Amino acid sequence: MIIAIKHGAPKGEVERFAAALEKQGVKIHFSEGASQTVLGLVGDTTGIDEESLMAHHLVEKVIRVQEPYKRANRLFHPGDTRIDIPLPEGGLRSIGEGKLGIIAGPCSVESRDQIVSVAKAVKEAGAGFLRGGAFKPRTSPYSFQGLGCNGLDLLLAAKKETGLPIVTELMAIHQLEVFDEVDIIQIGARNMQNFTLLKELGRCRKPVLLKRGLASTITELLMAAEYIMAGGNSRIILCERGIRTFDSYTRNTLDLSAIPALKRHTHLPVIVDPSHATGLAWMVPSMAKAAIAAGADGVIVEVHNNPEEALCDGEQSITPDTFSTLMETLKKYAEFEGRSI
Amino acid sequence: MIIAIKHGAPKGEVERFAAALEKQGVKIHFSEGASQTVLGLVGDTTGIDEESLMAHHLVEKVIRVQEPYKRANRLFHPGDTRIDIPLPEGGLRSIGEGKLGIIAGPCSVESRDQIVSVAKAVKEAGAGFLRGGAFKPRTSPYSFQGLGCNGLDLLLAAKKETGLPIVTELMAIHQLEVFDEVDIIQIGARNMQNFTLLKELGRCRKPVLLKRGLASTITELLMAAEYIMAGGNSRIILCERGIRTFDSYTRNTLDLSAIPALKRHTHLPVIVDPSHATGLAWMVPSMAKAAIAAGADGVIVEVHNNPEEALCDGEQSITPDTFSTLMETLKKYAEFEGRSI
Amino acid sequence: MIIAIKHGAPKGEVERFAAALEKQGVKIHFSEGASQTVLGLVGDTTGIDEESLMAHHLVEKVIRVQEPYKRANRLFHPGDTRIDIPLPEGGLRSIGEGKLGIIAGPCSVESRDQIVSVAKAVKEAGAGFLRGGAFKPRTSPYSFQGLGCNGLDLLLAAKKETGLPIVTELMAIHQLEVFDEVDIIQIGARNMQNFTLLKELGRCRKPVLLKRGLASTITELLMAAEYIMAGGNSRIILCERGIRTFDSYTRNTLDLSAIPALKRHTHLPVIVDPSHATGLAWMVPSMAKAAIAAGADGVIVEVHNNPEEALCDGEQSITPDTFSTLMETLKKYAEFEGRSI
Amino acid sequence: MIIAIKHGAPKGEVERFAAALEKQGVKIHFSEGASQTVLGLVGDTTGIDEESLMAHHLVEKVIRVQEPYKRANRLFHPGDTRIDIPLPEGGLRSIGEGKLGIIAGPCSVESRDQIVSVAKAVKEAGAGFLRGGAFKPRTSPYSFQGLGCNGLDLLLAAKKETGLPIVTELMAIHQLEVFDEVDIIQIGARNMQNFTLLKELGRCRKPVLLKRGLASTITELLMAAEYIMAGGNSRIILCERGIRTFDSYTRNTLDLSAIPALKRHTHLPVIVDPSHATGLAWMVPSMAKAAIAAGADGVIVEVHNNPEEALCDGEQSITPDTFSTLMETLKKYAEFEGRSI
Repeated sequence: MIIAIKHGAPKGEVERFAAALEKQGVKIHFSEGASQTVLGLVGDTTGIDEESLMAHHLVEKVIRVQEPYKRANRLFHPGDTRIDIPLPEGGLRSIGEGKLGIIAGPCSVESRDQIVSVAKAVKEAGAGFLRGGAFKPRTSPYSFQGLGCNGLDLLLAAKKETGLPIVTELMAIHQLEVFDEVDIIQIGARNMQNFTLLKELGRCRKPVLLKRGLASTITELLMAAEYIMAGGNSRIILCERGIRTFDSYTRNTLDLSAIPALKRHTHLPVIVDPSHATGLAWMVPSMAKAAIAAGADGVIVEVHNNPEEALCDGEQSITPDTFSTLMETLKKYAEFEGRSI
Repeated sequence: MIIAIKHGAPKGEVERFAAALEKQGVKIHFSEGASQTVLGLVGDTTGIDEESLMAHHLVEKVIRVQEPYKRANRLFHPGDTRIDIPLPEGGLRSIGEGKLGIIAGPCSVESRDQIVSVAKAVKEAGAGFLRGGAFKPRTSPYSFQGLGCNGLDLLLAAKKETGLPIVTELMAIHQLEVFDEVDIIQIGARNMQNFTLLKELGRCRKPVLLKRGLASTITELLMAAEYIMAGGNSRIILCERGIRTFDSYTRNTLDLSAIPALKRHTHLPVIVDPSHATGLAWMVPSMAKAAIAAGADGVIVEVHNNPEEALCDGEQSITPDTFSTLMETLKKYAEFEGRSI
Repeated sequence: MIIAIKHGAPKGEVERFAAALEKQGVKIHFSEGASQTVLGLVGDTTGIDEESLMAHHLVEKVIRVQEPYKRANRLFHPGDTRIDIPLPEGGLRSIGEGKLGIIAGPCSVESRDQIVSVAKAVKEAGAGFLRGGAFKPRTSPYSFQGLGCNGLDLLLAAKKETGLPIVTELMAIHQLEVFDEVDIIQIGARNMQNFTLLKELGRCRKPVLLKRGLASTITELLMAAEYIMAGGNSRIILCERGIRTFDSYTRNTLDLSAIPALKRHTHLPVIVDPSHATGLAWMVPSMAKAAIAAGADGVIVEVHNNPEEALCDGEQSITPDTFSTLMETLKKYAEFEGRSI
Repeated sequence: MIIAIKHGAPKGEVERFAAALEKQGVKIHFSEGASQTVLGLVGDTTGIDEESLMAHHLVEKVIRVQEPYKRANRLFHPGDTRIDIPLPEGGLRSIGEGKLGIIAGPCSVESRDQIVSVAKAVKEAGAGFLRGGAFKPRTSPYSFQGLGCNGLDLLLAAKKETGLPIVTELMAIHQLEVFDEVDIIQIGARNMQNFTLLKELGRCRKPVLLKRGLASTITELLMAAEYIMAGGNSRIILCERGIRTFDSYTRNTLDLSAIPALKRHTHLPVIVDPSHATGLAWMVPSMAKAAIAAGADGVIVEVHNNPEEALCDGEQSITPDTFSTLMETLKKYAEFEGRSI
C-alpha cells in the first residue's frame, strides 16, 4: 500500500502518523521527494482500512498494490481449485481444473412429476448437476415463494431417481438444518453480502455456489468468498449472473469479462448463469457458448419442460430439447479448449 | 394490467389464455383491433406475475398500470404516515407528516466516552435521535466488525444520559432478541432484499429504518417495505443513501429525485443519508440541505468527535461543530418549507 | 402503439384526443373497458413521439409495440446484409452473411515503418482489414491528437503495400474530403449521436463502422444507424465496444448480449471491439473468442508491434504474435459455426 | 504523479524508464523501498498519458495526484468566474460569483406567438435568460428536428420584444455563422466530447453553456471545458443535467453531488437542468430548489404555455404559472444563501 502525503504536511506530524501505522503491523518505508512525500507500507495490509486512511488530514491519496484478499488469491495458491462432489452411486463429479460443471433444472421445484422429468431430461442431455429452487427470493411478498421443505424433498427424490447431485438456494441460516443432503448450497445475488450468512457458511463443510451481486465489483465478490474461506470452508464456486446497468434490453447485463478477471485473481472455479443474466430464453444458448469460449468452468441453465406454465421466470427457461442441442455444442467447445464436461 | 397479444395469434388460444388468467382472480376485458388484440386485466393484479406472462408465446408486451404494492401505496392511504417514538422522559418524537427526523452519531460505537460525548454534542445541536453501529457490515472479514452486544450496551448508556432515542443496524434475525430497547431498527442497503429478515420484521412492532439497496429501483424499495407491511408492521421509514453508478467521484450517487418519487407513491416518511451516499465529509452539509429542500422528512448524518481516529468511515464523518452549524441552517430550511424539527 | 387512458377521463376529451392523433396518419382502435380505456394505434407510428404523448393529461401509459426504426429493422429485411469492400487487386472482401470481418492494427498511426510493419504482420496472420487512427478523439486537449492527414497518407501507403482495405475514424464532416480512399469510415462511440454527422454520412456512399455509445441502448444504436440509412446509405457495420457501468475493473463493460439482441432486430452485420471495451491486452483473446461464439460477424482488435512505446492506448494492444495465435483459434471457431474468415 | 514499479523489476530497466520519462519534461524522484520502488513525477504532468504508462511492463500502478486540467482548475484561479452578458438595453446580466442565472423557455421554438408569449411570461416571473431550441438533437430521424434558422429568427424576435438574452443549442460548427446574435451557445450532452466542435468554440468569443454528457465523469466534463479554454475562450458555464444509471423512474438520474464536486475543483459557474434530468414536470420544482440549496449558480428550466401540445418534451415542461411560483421560492432560497437572482 502506498500513501501519498499532502503537500506541505509538517514533518513531525507525518512521522507520528507513520509510527501509528506501524503499530498496525506493517513496516513503513519513508520516501521524501521535493514536492511529494510518499509512504510505502510493507507487510500484510489486508487488515488496514483504506477508508480510515483516506479520512486522515495528512493523506492525499492511497493506492493498494496488494489485493485485500488472501485465501481466495491465486497469488498464494497458483493452481486451480477443483470442487469434487461425491455421486450417490460412488465416484466424484468435479468442477474446476479443466472439468466443466453443467448445472441445469427449473427455476422452481413445482411438483414431483415436473422435477423428476426435467432431471431425467437434463441428465440424458449430459448435465452433471440438477438445480431447482425450493426457497425462492421473490421481489413481491405476493408472488409464489417456493415449496420450501417440500420442494427440497422433491429435489432429493429426483436426485435418487437420476443420481444427479443437487444445487439449491439457501436464504437464511436456519434453513441449513434441512440442507443435509443438498450437494451444493447456492447463495443468491441478493445475499452475496449477507455477512452473517457468509460467516455461517464458513463453518459448514458443503460446497457453496456464490453468485455475484447485481452491483458488486470483482473485488467485492472475492471478499465475499474470503468471508467464507476465513471461516475454514474453501469449497466455493463463483458465479457471474449479470450486473445492473442502464441497459434494460436484457434483465441484467452479463459481464463475461468477469471470467478472465476472476480466473486471473483467484484459484476458485467460475461459472456463468446466462438464464438469470439475460432473462430471455432465446439468448441463453449464445451466451452459454460465449461463457465457455471466455474460459468459464461451467454454466448453470434454467430448463423447464413447459416454460409457459412455469410458476416463476418462465421467460428465461429453455426446453429440454434446446438444452440437449446446446449440450452438443458445449461439449465440442470444451474439447476445443482442452477441457471436458 | 394490459397485455398486448402477438399479431396473428389464433383466437381460440387467446381465449383459453384469457380464461386461465381469470382463474387468478381478475376480470379480462377483451379488445380486438384490426392489427392488435389487447387484454385489459381488471381487479387486484398484485399477485399476477409479469414475468410469467412475458414467457407466454401469445404475449407481445405487458404493461402494469397499477403498482404492485398495496399497503405502502399512497393511493390507498392518501395521508402521510407519521412514526412516533416514545421518549424516555415521556412524550413522543416524530418523523413524517411535517416533522423532520434528524438522526446523528458515529458510524461505529467505539467506547463509552466516545458515544456519550457525541450523543451530548448532537443533542445540544438539536438532533432528535442518536445513531451508532454495534453490528457492522464490512466488506472485508479482516476489518473491524463492531463491538456487537457491548456496543449496544454503550448506546443504551448514551440514551440514558441524553434521553435520545437510538437507531442501530440489525444484521441478522437472531440479533432481534438483544434489540429490545433499541428505538428504531436500521436495515442496511445490503439487506434490503434479505426477504427472510424482512418477513421477520413484519412480525415485530418496532419502527424500521429501511435503506435503499445500492442497485434497487424505487419500486423494489417499496416492495421491500411491502414485505414488512404484509406481516403487520407499518412503522417504516425509507432512506435514500446513494445508488451505484459509473461515477466514482462520490462513493455512491445520491439520488435526490427519489424523494419526490417516493413521496408521490407512498405515505411512508423518507429520509436521506448524505454521509454514506457521498463518503465525503465536506459534501455532507450541501447534500443535507438539498435533501430537505427536495422534501425529505429528515436526514441521518455521521458525526464523530475525532473523524481521523474513527475505526470506520471516518472520511465521511463531520465534526460536532460542523453538525451544529448545519443544524442552524436545516432549522431555517424546515421553517421555510412549513415543517419543523 | 398502445395508449392507456387515465381512469375517469371524460369521454369527449378522449375522443378529441384520438381525433387529433388520427391526423398524424394512424388509425385509432378505441377499446373501452370497465375500468380502463385503451387506444390502439394502427399504421406507421415511427413518426409519433412517445414523449409528447406521455405529456398529455389524459394519458396513463404508452407502449410501443412496433420498433421505431424501419430501414434497419430485420422485420422488413429478413436476410442478412453483407458489406462488400473492393480489394485493390480486384475481388471483394465481405463482412456479414456468414463472412467474418477481422480488422486489426494500431490505435494510432505513428510512422510509416510502424504502420507498414503492423499491416504486414496482421495480414500474414489472416486479418482482412487494417485499422489505424489518424484523427484521434482524446479526453485531454494536451494528449497526442493523431497525425491527421499525414496519418491518413501513411495508412494509404500501408494499404498499397499490403492490399488490405483500411478502416479509420472520422471525427468531423469537413474531414470527409480527405477520406476518398478510405474503405470503411469509423464513427466513434462519442459521435454515435452526432446527428449532423450521421445525416452527412447518409449522403456518402462509403461503408460506415458505427460504434455503440458508452451509454447507448440497443434501440439508440439502431436509431443512429437509421439516421444514416434514412439518407440513403445502408452500408453500415454496427460495433459493440463496451458500455459504462459501475464496474471499473475493465475500462468499459463489454456487453456481449448485444450481439444476439442486435442480430435479432436488424439485418446489419455486428462486430465487437474487445480492445477498447476491456482496455486490457491480456483479456482481448478470451473476449474475442467469446464474441465469435456469441455470433458476432467479426472483431476489431488493436495490434501494436511495441505496445509499451505506443503513443496511445498501449495497455490494450496485443502483439502481432498474440494476434497470430488468436487468429488460429478464431478460424476454428468460425468454421465450427459454419462461417468463414 | 506517482508510479509504483512492479516487484522485482531490474534496476537498470527502471532507470532507463525514468530517464525516458524525464524527457517528457518532468523530474523524477526515485524512491527505492524494501519491497516496492516508487517513482514520483514532479512538474507539469498534464501532458503525460496515464494509459501509456499503465501499458509499460515495469509499471504496477499509477496515481495522478495533480488534476489533468489547468485552466479550469480552481487551484490556479481561486476566485469564482462570473460570466457577464450584455443586455440589449445596456447593462449586464451575470452568472456566477453569487449571481444566479435563471434560464427558462420552451424545449423547441414552435411559432412567433409561442416563443414571444413564453418569453414575456418567464421575464415577468423573473427569469434572466430565454432558452429555446432551434436546432434539435433528436433520437429519431423521423422526429421534429426544430425550425432551424427560422427558429433562431423567432428567438431573436422574442429577445427584441423582452430584452432577454437568449440561450440556444449549437449542433455543428457550420451553424456558428448564424449564431451571431445568440448570447449563450448551448452544447448538448451528446456533443460534450465532440472534440472538433469544442476546439472551434475555443476560437469564438461567446459564452458557452456546456452540458455534462450522460455517462461523463466530473473529470471528463472539466476536460471538455479545458478543450474550449485551451483555445482561448474561458466564458464557460457548466451544466449538470442527469446521468444514465440503472434507475429508469426519471429519464436520467440528477447528480446533485456534482455541484459541490465541481465548485471545489473549478472556478467556472455550475447550473442545473432539472427538466431534462427528470423528464417529469411535477418533479422540476423540488429538484430546482434542491439544486440551489446544494450551491448551484442557477437553473435552466423548460417552460411551455401548453405542454400538452408541445412538439417535443412536453412531459417535462412546467407552465408559466408553476414557474412563477417556483421563482418566488428560488428568490427566497438565494437570499438566504447570500446570493441574488
